[in-house]
Amino acid sequence: MNMKEEIPYKIYLEEKEIPTQWYNVRADMKNKPAPLLNPATLQPLGMEDLNHVFCTELNKQELDNDTPYFDIPEEILNFYRMYRPSPLVRAYFLEKALGTPAKIYYKFEGNNTSGSHKLNSAIAQAYYAKKQGLKGVTTETGAGQWGTALSMACSYFGLDCQVYMVKCSYDQKPFRREVMRTYGAKVTPSPSLSTNVGRKILSEHPDTTGSLGCAISEAVEAATTQEGYRYVLGSVLNQVLLHQTIIGLETKKALDKYGIKPDIIIGCAGGGSNLGGLISPFVGEMLRGEADYRIIAVEPASCPSFTRGKFAYDFCDTGMICPLAKMYTLGSQFIPSANHAGGLRFHGMSTILSQLYNDGLFEAKAVEQTAVFDAATQFARVEGILPAPESSHAIRIAIDEAMKCKETGEEKTIVFGLTGTGYFDLYAYEAFNNGTMTDIIPSDETIDSFLSRLPKVD
Amino acid sequence: MNMKEEIPYKIYLEEKEIPTQWYNVRADMKNKPAPLLNPATLQPLGMEDLNHVFCTELNKQELDNDTPYFDIPEEILNFYRMYRPSPLVRAYFLEKALGTPAKIYYKFEGNNTSGSHKLNSAIAQAYYAKKQGLKGVTTETGAGQWGTALSMACSYFGLDCQVYMVKCSYDQKPFRREVMRTYGAKVTPSPSLSTNVGRKILSEHPDTTGSLGCAISEAVEAATTQEGYRYVLGSVLNQVLLHQTIIGLETKKALDKYGIKPDIIIGCAGGGSNLGGLISPFVGEMLRGEADYRIIAVEPASCPSFTRGKFAYDFCDTGMICPLAKMYTLGSQFIPSANHAGGLRFHGMSTILSQLYNDGLFEAKAVEQTAVFDAATQFARVEGILPAPESSHAIRIAIDEAMKCKETGEEKTIVFGLTGTGYFDLYAYEAFNNGTMTDIIPSDETIDSFLSRLPKVD
Repeated sequence: MNMKEEIPYKIYLEEKEIPTQWYNVRADMKNKPAPLLNPATLQPLGMEDLNHVFCTELNKQELDNDTPYFDIPEEILNFYRMYRPSPLVRAYFLEKALGTPAKIYYKFEGNNTSGSHKLNSAIAQAYYAKKQGLKGVTTETGAGQWGTALSMACSYFGLDCQVYMVKCSYDQKPFRREVMRTYGAKVTPSPSLSTNVGRKILSEHPDTTGSLGCAISEAVEAATTQEGYRYVLGSVLNQVLLHQTIIGLETKKALDKYGIKPDIIIGCAGGGSNLGGLISPFVGEMLRGEADYRIIAVEPASCPSFTRGKFAYDFCDTGMICPLAKMYTLGSQFIPSANHAGGLRFHGMSTILSQLYNDGLFEAKAVEQTAVFDAATQFARVEGILPAPESSHAIRIAIDEAMKCKETGEEKTIVFGLTGTGYFDLYAYEAFNNGTMTDIIPSDETIDSFLSRLPKVD
Repeated sequence: MNMKEEIPYKIYLEEKEIPTQWYNVRADMKNKPAPLLNPATLQPLGMEDLNHVFCTELNKQELDNDTPYFDIPEEILNFYRMYRPSPLVRAYFLEKALGTPAKIYYKFEGNNTSGSHKLNSAIAQAYYAKKQGLKGVTTETGAGQWGTALSMACSYFGLDCQVYMVKCSYDQKPFRREVMRTYGAKVTPSPSLSTNVGRKILSEHPDTTGSLGCAISEAVEAATTQEGYRYVLGSVLNQVLLHQTIIGLETKKALDKYGIKPDIIIGCAGGGSNLGGLISPFVGEMLRGEADYRIIAVEPASCPSFTRGKFAYDFCDTGMICPLAKMYTLGSQFIPSANHAGGLRFHGMSTILSQLYNDGLFEAKAVEQTAVFDAATQFARVEGILPAPESSHAIRIAIDEAMKCKETGEEKTIVFGLTGTGYFDLYAYEAFNNGTMTDIIPSDETIDSFLSRLPKVD
């Protein structure tokens, strides 16, 4: 049988084939991720610490290192049917353009109005907030991808959604702001006069255009000072990785359906939500000794936490008020160069992925942004999808690996995660099209100076 | 059997079920659409007139009133597999939100980077240009939907793509411009210094922000004065409706697969490309006496060619240099109010649709834009897709009809065309969200004054 003839351009699972459980890779990890620490006591955070800020059911998921599978509630499965299963696309056009014998597949998460995989966790977090009887949730957003996903999810469950949006994005990138408002979210430019921390920052720096760190502080304050509100977060947390395993589980099911075994699996990495979601089921097989894969995390050279960071306890926020996590970090004060356009800006990394990387379960590569946009353009022209800059990090390495196959003649099967579309990132594309985009990579001295200031935890 | 249980949220045909022929509804029309007339001689246009401006093979399709089916070339089918079949979605969420017994389906054409159905004809026109050995094509674009689709198509076939983009859109809506540039198109703000007509307009009106009429004139001049170029157009023409029948053919196949017979079919109408594509196979059944449907064309109240225009010969362009078509028209000098945000701005209508409407094959309704954006928002919140303003005209009437079913208790089956997404229309959504959007409907005096100036053709 000629399998190639049998494999369509787009593999869609049937709706009844959507996985009904999320997979918790921690259950199969011998070395569990290190616990979050209370920044005041340096003691591991427990339910009582977390319940003040986050939804109770989500905290159970956050702290559970043992349960391998969590049932996906029927209400969430229902919502998933709105935009899932997402297609696993055979990149026939890209393969042909590259002239490679490699077989390339990508799992495309961008066919929903939030434009990315973020919706997979947003709907879960909104569901548990609703189930807890809350009035609403608060969050922060930079360019607006997470805020948009959360707005859609809250609209579905009739929850109030309060988004603190970094002021410069609120003013300069009004499009995602308007999508959020269309979904009924209250979008506040941060810093704002509606919180103590916002008022304090504005009195000290009246002309500030805001920062993600400040928006986080405002969102947490808003959640903890309003009756019936909790704070939600779109990446980094264990619960987010858990929800995002729907990506990897669908991918594996689609591959299995056609008898395809990937050789290389590639995902972009910022806080880890997409990478963790995509690779968890495959890493689980590796941890259980059932299979072996080459897995590659791709990060921006301007924010290289895996490849140049340190595996250590650090604050999760620049304000140093959030818990400490043991993770690959560049230091909580590290901020990528202002000309960095490709997202994936977090200074740290999911504790699960950090532990897995430290244990050698996957490798990591850092790529420069002009090379990323070059891959994005090449991909868009042949595959017909304008990719998000974040996703394009994975495209870059997928193309590089496919070209190596061309040299060696190997027919490797490459699977990568295409997390979303770039329809709201066109200023970055414009810079690339105009030839004004540059690569600025932090010097060793810069990185050393931030790493030397990591908190001392025994 | 409980059919409802059997019908998934999204009906995807298999790739091998993609129709392999376009359907030419003219073959089944007893009253053929009236021919285009040469504006100088008022004689019907023939191949020799058309070949100077358009691709030869496309002109054959344009003039052919008899051949019922045209084979879709394999290269175009290949490209279609990149983003087709498009899903026919059962709007379970919308039905539930409305509390209607009606069954609502929509054919969603927005899951591609051009964001709309325009790609269906763009790829066909690019293919025939390539096959003719041309170097490239020229076109005009307003907000950029058609230009984006054409850029993608030309990139695929390695054709040069020259887009004249209305200057105010070029400056104020840079996003689609950058998508086009990412696909390698040369995008020129119109009026420009690169054509005689552009130079003339700029010398007379140096501060003009351009118009679609002017951009058309520049694109036609560029096509006819460069060796190896032709002009292409994204709507109105018979050939465009032919290519767009892929929408209706897939819709019908998906419905037939599940034994569903629609009672009401709804499409938005500007120049007619989507409406004609969606309804042609159903109208064909009606013309052959095989079935009966209620079909509704929906147009903006600020540009009401079907509902308030006249069925008469008129120029297709404001410059009165293009051919005359017998169509429902508001007069070639008619321009919708500047505050009109919903697209569908053409003063006339496809000659095929005009003839069918005149013969009573379907009805038409005009809707005001605040009601359209209200429907758009309602739809987005429950179905998870932010719709294009154009498509939202159809949503408005679909909701209205579903609410009538709620009153009467009738379980009618409603199918509408969701032509695209609104990701590049967020200034319009912003106006709606801010409550600053208004409805301005042309007065009878205004319309009469334009209609009184229609050209005299016996």
